[in-house]
Amino acid sequence: MKTLHDRLKTTLGSGVDAIDTPALVVDLDAMQRNLNRMAEFARKHGVRWRPHAKMHKSSVLARLQVQAGACGVCVQKTAEAEALAAGGVQDIYISNEVIAPAKLARVAALAHQLAAVGGQLAIAVDSEEGVRRLAEAMNAQRAAGAAAAVIDVFVEIDVGQGRCGVPPGTPAVALVHAIRRHAALRFAGLQAYHGRAQHLRGARERRDAVAAVVRAVQASCAAIEAEGVTVPLVTGAGTGTLVCEAASGVFGELQPGSFLFMDVDYARNERDAAQPAFEHALFVRTQVISVSADHAVCDAGHKSHAIDSGLPLVHAVGGEPASLEFANGGDEHGLLRGARLPALGDCLWLVPGHCDPTVNLHDHLIGVAGGLAKGRIQRIIRVDARGALG
Amino acid sequence: MKTLHDRLKTTLGSGVDAIDTPALVVDLDAMQRNLNRMAEFARKHGVRWRPHAKMHKSSVLARLQVQAGACGVCVQKTAEAEALAAGGVQDIYISNEVIAPAKLARVAALAHQLAAVGGQLAIAVDSEEGVRRLAEAMNAQRAAGAAAAVIDVFVEIDVGQGRCGVPPGTPAVALVHAIRRHAALRFAGLQAYHGRAQHLRGARERRDAVAAVVRAVQASCAAIEAEGVTVPLVTGAGTGTLVCEAASGVFGELQPGSFLFMDVDYARNERDAAQPAFEHALFVRTQVISVSADHAVCDAGHKSHAIDSGLPLVHAVGGEPASLEFANGGDEHGLLRGARLPALGDCLWLVPGHCDPTVNLHDHLIGVAGGLAKGRIQRIIRVDARGALG
Repeated sequence: MKTLHDRLKTTLGSGVDAIDTPALVVDLDAMQRNLNRMAEFARKHGVRWRPHAKMHKSSVLARLQVQAGACGVCVQKTAEAEALAAGGVQDIYISNEVIAPAKLARVAALAHQLAAVGGQLAIAVDSEEGVRRLAEAMNAQRAAGAAAAVIDVFVEIDVGQGRCGVPPGTPAVALVHAIRRHAALRFAGLQAYHGRAQHLRGARERRDAVAAVVRAVQASCAAIEAEGVTVPLVTGAGTGTLVCEAASGVFGELQPGSFLFMDVDYARNERDAAQPAFEHALFVRTQVISVSADHAVCDAGHKSHAIDSGLPLVHAVGGEPASLEFANGGDEHGLLRGARLPALGDCLWLVPGHCDPTVNLHDHLIGVAGGLAKGRIQRIIRVDARGALG
Repeated sequence: MKTLHDRLKTTLGSGVDAIDTPALVVDLDAMQRNLNRMAEFARKHGVRWRPHAKMHKSSVLARLQVQAGACGVCVQKTAEAEALAAGGVQDIYISNEVIAPAKLARVAALAHQLAAVGGQLAIAVDSEEGVRRLAEAMNAQRAAGAAAAVIDVFVEIDVGQGRCGVPPGTPAVALVHAIRRHAALRFAGLQAYHGRAQHLRGARERRDAVAAVVRAVQASCAAIEAEGVTVPLVTGAGTGTLVCEAASGVFGELQPGSFLFMDVDYARNERDAAQPAFEHALFVRTQVISVSADHAVCDAGHKSHAIDSGLPLVHAVGGEPASLEFANGGDEHGLLRGARLPALGDCLWLVPGHCDPTVNLHDHLIGVAGGLAKGRIQRIIRVDARGALG
């Protein structure tokens, strides 16, 4: 039997009607415009950008971002880093804590593998135990004969997210000292990401939240620098707040993920005047499989699109008003209601509520060039870190 | 680089500490008890059971169910049917509508492929257009030289779910006649599933809902039989209501999926006295990667477990009270709060809120025998229809 990838490749060059539903489709032109907007924004503000690949989980898209000027990518998981490295990505930052010795052995192996090709691995820590275990894993690699590599280590500060990270101010100091005691570890700076601030709806609310982030970062930098240690870089920010971090004078690197595809949730944010006009580039194509008197049913449920940040919206292609309302029909179905129902067999486009976990449901992205209405299938993009949880 | 499957296989025979987190783990003993309970229940009530493989998406588990007495399995998607057939499952019912001609060509090809090995494919319809297209696809296979196969066709009745299906009563008649006009299609009976009724909390509420289902089915049967056509089988039911359908005298086949693993959502149902005592058999193993003054953070977020039916619960292994509260920490993190926080590096077991979409996030299930506390990794089960959306 043909693999799914083989079957998808036979559709290259065809129109969108050749897409088997449900499928995750990227409007390649819109994606490229988002990429250009991000590159231009970072250039204008003199900051580096290291997009978060937890969103797209694709080495092809990570390399596209690096070609467009990104300094590398972030990931959240060791297995994501491994998958992207296998796909040719060389500068990767695991912006998260790793504690299991078996996983740290993989982190250390990857650090050496990337160093051998001129690349670089980085990771975040928020505990002395984490630093100690990381150093042990790096030293074990060296003891096993690997050419000495160094891993960049960021100290994570809890700047309001209430998740990982040490409190702002002096707690970071002990970690910085701990890192600097190990030749295989290099203190690379501070990880300061406020995830919840990304989704505050008002532009003013987000600015206030990031002002507090900046104060927390400054307190941590001051405590570290009082010990005579320079903080090389502060990294953080997401699609929702990046205009604030970029203008802060404190952040040297931005980590947005969703800007590339956008989603319904981010589109609900009041747009900051300085925000680049990112547009929707990710869609679920779905087909109507049943029609009754008062509703239609399509073949996309929450195994096709994540619903943690709300349901998808029906996207109007070609400018007509989107008059259909999408309701949850379970794992495999969507319910459509509206004044004019679609016909049996009609296909629709949905904009997912949250792009990251939606992409994680799909093995491939179907790249369409020339617009959704009349475009052609131009490339099949593997989501090669899909399901890379560990 | 080793594949994930290779890496997992090296852990066979090890204790649970060898499980890389986050991972989806099956308590094989609990699963087997659930399987035995279901087989015994069906035997006692003289009904067939055709478990829904949309839940586990695994050909290994489908074959295990058939060995335990199931007459075959249900799926929702053509691609699921293909994946399970490739894994050796021979009796498959696509309990859903398929409309796309390209997909119906695959359905017809699969029907012939299964018939060639003595198996059988079935499908649901709810429109004359759907019947016409299905017949066309089957006839095209025959015209292409395939040995004549027959596909079983169920007419779906909307018995309260408000999704697919024709209204109860006479509307089914036209579909039955349409099916019977085609030599390659065999009218197999009625599909009558009320998904929402599964999750009504009160046992009485569920009984009332299924009483209405039974009336709807009887009206449809009466209308069909008034035309001199026998209804060979009524199929439906889920884990929440199966005691009602089994006792109805109308349903000849039950389609439960979740009974095999159970989840937090089904455990919230008031148990009907007649309900087999299904127990939790599916768990996310997760590790604490960060600890602060008032909470701990584990490495399982909603890329590891679906949250459409609520958050997972922390499972007490070994009888101690489950005192930790799990809160949503985003795509990759869980937040743990409680009087006594776990230590950095500790591992915990979570019971997922909803098993179906949780399994769909994982490529493998780690099968543990001998209990979660002190058991051994006994088998690695591929989720071979994971992501089979089309």
